[in-house]
Amino acid sequence: MPIGTKHLEVGYDLPAAVGMDESEIQTPCLVLDLDALEDNIVKMGEFAKRMGVRHRIHAKMHKSVDIALLQERLGGSCGVCCQKVSEAEVFVRGGIRDVLVSNQVRDPAKIDRLARLPRLGVRIVVCVDDIANVSELSAAAAKHGTQIECLVEIDCGAGRCGVVETAEVVAIARAIDAARGLKFSGLQAYQGAMQHLELYADRKAKIDIAVDMVRAAVEALKAEGLDCDIVGGGGTGSYYFEGNSGVYNELQCGSYAFMDADYGRILDKAGNRIDRGEWKNALFILTSVMSHAKPDKAICDAGLKAQSVDSGLPVVFGRDDVTYVKCSDEHGVIDDPAGALEINERLRLVPGHCDPTCNVHDWYVGVRGGKVETVWPVSARGKAY
Amino acid sequence: MPIGTKHLEVGYDLPAAVGMDESEIQTPCLVLDLDALEDNIVKMGEFAKRMGVRHRIHAKMHKSVDIALLQERLGGSCGVCCQKVSEAEVFVRGGIRDVLVSNQVRDPAKIDRLARLPRLGVRIVVCVDDIANVSELSAAAAKHGTQIECLVEIDCGAGRCGVVETAEVVAIARAIDAARGLKFSGLQAYQGAMQHLELYADRKAKIDIAVDMVRAAVEALKAEGLDCDIVGGGGTGSYYFEGNSGVYNELQCGSYAFMDADYGRILDKAGNRIDRGEWKNALFILTSVMSHAKPDKAICDAGLKAQSVDSGLPVVFGRDDVTYVKCSDEHGVIDDPAGALEINERLRLVPGHCDPTCNVHDWYVGVRGGKVETVWPVSARGKAY
Repeated sequence: MPIGTKHLEVGYDLPAAVGMDESEIQTPCLVLDLDALEDNIVKMGEFAKRMGVRHRIHAKMHKSVDIALLQERLGGSCGVCCQKVSEAEVFVRGGIRDVLVSNQVRDPAKIDRLARLPRLGVRIVVCVDDIANVSELSAAAAKHGTQIECLVEIDCGAGRCGVVETAEVVAIARAIDAARGLKFSGLQAYQGAMQHLELYADRKAKIDIAVDMVRAAVEALKAEGLDCDIVGGGGTGSYYFEGNSGVYNELQCGSYAFMDADYGRILDKAGNRIDRGEWKNALFILTSVMSHAKPDKAICDAGLKAQSVDSGLPVVFGRDDVTYVKCSDEHGVIDDPAGALEINERLRLVPGHCDPTCNVHDWYVGVRGGKVETVWPVSARGKAY
Repeated sequence: MPIGTKHLEVGYDLPAAVGMDESEIQTPCLVLDLDALEDNIVKMGEFAKRMGVRHRIHAKMHKSVDIALLQERLGGSCGVCCQKVSEAEVFVRGGIRDVLVSNQVRDPAKIDRLARLPRLGVRIVVCVDDIANVSELSAAAAKHGTQIECLVEIDCGAGRCGVVETAEVVAIARAIDAARGLKFSGLQAYQGAMQHLELYADRKAKIDIAVDMVRAAVEALKAEGLDCDIVGGGGTGSYYFEGNSGVYNELQCGSYAFMDADYGRILDKAGNRIDRGEWKNALFILTSVMSHAKPDKAICDAGLKAQSVDSGLPVVFGRDDVTYVKCSDEHGVIDDPAGALEINERLRLVPGHCDPTCNVHDWYVGVRGGKVETVWPVSARGKAY
C-alpha cells in the first residue's frame, strides 16, 4: 500500500503563494474574501451577545481549524460543533477546547476514539437518541477514565436523528444521569429542514413548533431535577428565532460565515435576500475560462470535482452578463451571449452549497485587496468517519 | 500556514487494515469488490482486442495509480487519459508512461508544468481547440527541450470544448505540425452527452453523427498529408460503436471498471440493464446505520460528504426491502418499512455517479471474500488544477 505516494502529493499542488495577485492563483480553488469573512464573524458574535446566548459555531461547514480559531477570537464563539469523531479529533488537536459532536456515535471503534479525547484536557459533548447508546458510551468513558457529556437529541422537524416524545427524552436523560462516566448536559434540537425556506414567516412557523417541543422537554426534565446546561440549535436561516426564544441558550450556525447561493436566496424579515445585507459572500470557487471555441459559450475549469451541485448550480459573482448553465465532471459551461469572456479570465463562483463544496478542496486561499494573504488547509477535509 | 497539520492528518484515519472483516471497516468509505473489478477490466481488454483498437483507460474516473497499473496488466490498456495537469503529474510519478490530458491547457503555469513532464521519459499528449494555444504550447516545449503531442479536439455533440468545422480542425492541425516542440498526433472526439441515454438505438444515432464528423476530418487531414496516429473517444455507453467504426482506433472508457447507479440503468442492445450482465458493480460506499429512532426510517452515515448526488441518489445493493430516499450533508435517510435494519448494520451503496464520488474519498478498501485485501490511496484526489 503506497502510503508514501499520498504523503508525496500533499502540499505539492498548493494553489497559491502569499503575496500573489488573485489572477495568478491556480484554478479551480476556494478563495476567501477575508474582509467579508471577518465582518460576518464579528456580526454574528454581536448578534449572539445581544440575544444573551452562546454561539457554538458549526465547524463541519468549513472543516478548518484556522477559521474556528478566528471565530473564537473575533466572534467570541464558545466552542465548535462537528458531525464526526474524526472531525472532533482534528479540532481538538488544532486547539479547540470545547467540542460537541452534534450527532450519534454508535460504532464501537468510534465510541472508543471519542472517549479518549477528554484525556487531552478538553470538553467533549455528544448526542444520544437511543437508550441503548447510553451504556455503550458509559463503558468507553469508564474504560478511559474520562467524562463524556451527553445531550438528548430531539427531532424537532428535520426528520433525521432524534426522538420526538418528551417521555423518551426524559427516559434517556435519566439513564445518562445515572451512568458512570457520563454527564447529562442538556438538549440538541436543530431544525435542519426549514433553514432554506424562502419566507421568514414560514421559517418562523417551523421554529415555533420546535421551541414548543423543546420547552416541554426542558420543563419535564426540570421536574425530574435535571437541568439543561446546553439547549442547542439554530442555523443561518433561523438563529434569531432560537436566540430570542428564552429556551435555547446555544446557537450552532455555520454557513453565515461563508454564505452560498442557496442560502443567499432566502429572505429576511423585510423581504430582502440575506446575501444582500445580512451576510456577505466570503467564499468563492475561483475558476478560469479554458475554452471558448463557440462564440456564445465559455468553458471554465470548475465542474463536479470542484463543488457539490446538490442545491443548484453556482452563480457567477458580480456579473450579470454571463451565467453558469451546466456542470460536468471537470467543466462548467457558461452562457456568454456577448462573447465577453477571454481565455484565462478568472471568475468568482458562489457555490450552490458551501459545506460539501469545501469538502472536495484541500486549501482555502485567503485574499485581501486582490492579494493572497494566507493559505489555510481544509483541516478536516474527508474526515467522514 | 500550518501545513504541518495537514501532513499530520494524512493516513491517520485509514478506514481499514488488511485482513479485517468487511463488517469492521470504518464507515463511510469506498469499498471495491476486487473480483468484480478484475472481471470488468479483463472483459473490456478482450472487447478492445477483438475490435482491433487500443484502450486508453480514463483514469480521471478513479484517480488511482494502483488501479491504472492493474488496467495495464490485466486489461492491456495502452496508457491513461486524465483531465488535469495535476492528475497527469500523479500518474507519471506513479509509473504510467503514456498520458493523454484529454482537455485544453491554457494557464501559463499549467502549460509550463505539462511541458516539463516528457523529461521524465514519458509520452505526453494534450488536446487543442484554439489555434492560439499552439504557440503557447510550442514555446513551453521549446523552453524545456521536450516534445508535446497534440490532438485536435472535435466537439461531436457534447457541447463543451472542441471545434465543429473540418476546416478549423485542419487549420489547427497544420499549425501544430509546423510548430517547434509539438507533434500532430490525431484527433480527440468524445461524445459525452449521449453516454447516459437509456436506449441503445438512441446512443447509436448520436455516435453515427460523431463518426461521420470524425471520418470527414481524418480524410481532410490525410489530403493535407497529416496522418492521425490517435483517433480517440468512446465511453462506457458507446465503446462498441466507436470500436467498430473503422475510424476510431483508441477507446477511452472509465466507468465500466466500477459501474454506478446512473450508468447501470442504461440498456444494452438486447434491452437489458448494463449492470445486469455487461458489467459488474465493483464500487460501493460502505455505510452504517447510526440512528433508528423512528421505526420505519433508518439513518445511515453516508451523506453529501461521502458522495456526489448530481446523477441521483445511491441504490442499496442487494436489498429490495430498504431504499435510500434522502441525502443531507452527513446523513442518508433510508426507508425501512419493516424495521429490518439494525444499529451498526453495514450496507453497500451503489453511488449515483462514480467519478465525483471517488473524488471526495482518500482511500479505496479492496475486499475479496468478505476480507480486506488491500487499501489503495485515491492518488489524484482533489487534483483539480
